[in-house]
Amino acid sequence: MSCARAVCLLSGGMDSAVALAESRAAGFESFALSFDYGQRHRIELEAAARVARALQAAEHRVVRVDLSAIGGSALTDAIEVPKDRPLDHPGATVPVTYVPARNTVFLAVALGWAEVLGARDMYLGVNAVDYSGYPDCRPAFLQAFERLARVATVAGAERGERLEVHAPLLEMSKAEIVRRGLELGVDFGLTHSCYDPVAGSNADETVACGRCDACRLRLRGFAEVGARDPARYAAFGSGNCE
Amino acid sequence: MSCARAVCLLSGGMDSAVALAESRAAGFESFALSFDYGQRHRIELEAAARVARALQAAEHRVVRVDLSAIGGSALTDAIEVPKDRPLDHPGATVPVTYVPARNTVFLAVALGWAEVLGARDMYLGVNAVDYSGYPDCRPAFLQAFERLARVATVAGAERGERLEVHAPLLEMSKAEIVRRGLELGVDFGLTHSCYDPVAGSNADETVACGRCDACRLRLRGFAEVGARDPARYAAFGSGNCE
Repeated sequence: MSCARAVCLLSGGMDSAVALAESRAAGFESFALSFDYGQRHRIELEAAARVARALQAAEHRVVRVDLSAIGGSALTDAIEVPKDRPLDHPGATVPVTYVPARNTVFLAVALGWAEVLGARDMYLGVNAVDYSGYPDCRPAFLQAFERLARVATVAGAERGERLEVHAPLLEMSKAEIVRRGLELGVDFGLTHSCYDPVAGSNADETVACGRCDACRLRLRGFAEVGARDPARYAAFGSGNCE
Repeated sequence: MSCARAVCLLSGGMDSAVALAESRAAGFESFALSFDYGQRHRIELEAAARVARALQAAEHRVVRVDLSAIGGSALTDAIEVPKDRPLDHPGATVPVTYVPARNTVFLAVALGWAEVLGARDMYLGVNAVDYSGYPDCRPAFLQAFERLARVATVAGAERGERLEVHAPLLEMSKAEIVRRGLELGVDFGLTHSCYDPVAGSNADETVACGRCDACRLRLRGFAEVGARDPARYAAFGSGNCE
């Protein structure tokens, strides 16, 4: 008998890599799904392909969804990525790196692919750090999407199958994600987190900026665990210095 | 004071044209949204642009979402469109022209654009004829999406705004849609419904096949109202013959 299938959102960042590893550890045949959504940095998609291979995803597909056509985010639009801002800012407004309805769109496509594959499970790497800022990373959103999935598809609406949205990192801090990823054998050197990568010292090398929210949260996570971040960073060479 | 804004899904077919006309009649400044989703026939997008102009949409955007990357439908994949089958087939399985999770994906992008525009209202043209066959056209789906929208966005989750999904044709038959569209001044000659258009008698003219489910339902709707369908059809020239 073949294993049950799961569709796993894979951005190329460290969180979704760990979520994909969790789906594999849970025994699923994992189908990795990435998006070319007009994000500025295609380097994320290369990272996603490397991670899918390393974690033995059954397949990796990249779907083009041109979210830049609706604008509204620093990641797809001509808005500057903020740098060097404090990481703990309760009550702060949603950052400009928020892409309106991004996870709704990504999960919707994942749902379509799940229906084609006969998969009932979807994985994504949202976590407590994200959901402080982005509404579409919060538990209420995930629950609402799961309810939607159960009426939106033939599997759910006609055959009463209970589609499930798994967010195994939901309650984890970045440090806990690093620790769990290392336990599961995730090679974080394959992942890419930076919102604003810059040219490295070698020709045609791109390195993480070390200053955007994504880099700073990642660096702090590794520092808290006392592990070395294998990613390459601008200026200070490796991620061991925060 | 400017009017409230609404995002309206516009496929180029007759139903979404009438839904857009309803949003205008309700006093909204309407932002029409179409998708280039790997459907075989770009003629739909040309029809959408004509309809948006005729109904004075404030803007019309086309977002590319490559649903053919996940396959599974006669409209995006190498599966044949069924012809000449009976229109009333209760209990029949979902037709192969169903595109998995299509309305979930389309509404998700509409939600993102609504957030960028500060719109709280979304319109789509699903109706009773559709929802007999497609799970993502049924009332339970629309209600679940509305609940999702209210937690998925900054407007909903942070400011408690009540986003609404309007499906003004939900309970209408095709004949009622034709009648209502004529009342609202919709030019049905601008719309395109056929799943499988064919070459016409003039060079570079494409006409409706008259035999797929979409054509047959449309023709029956016009016939029941006793109105002439201004669309051009293969073989029998105009749509007045069923």
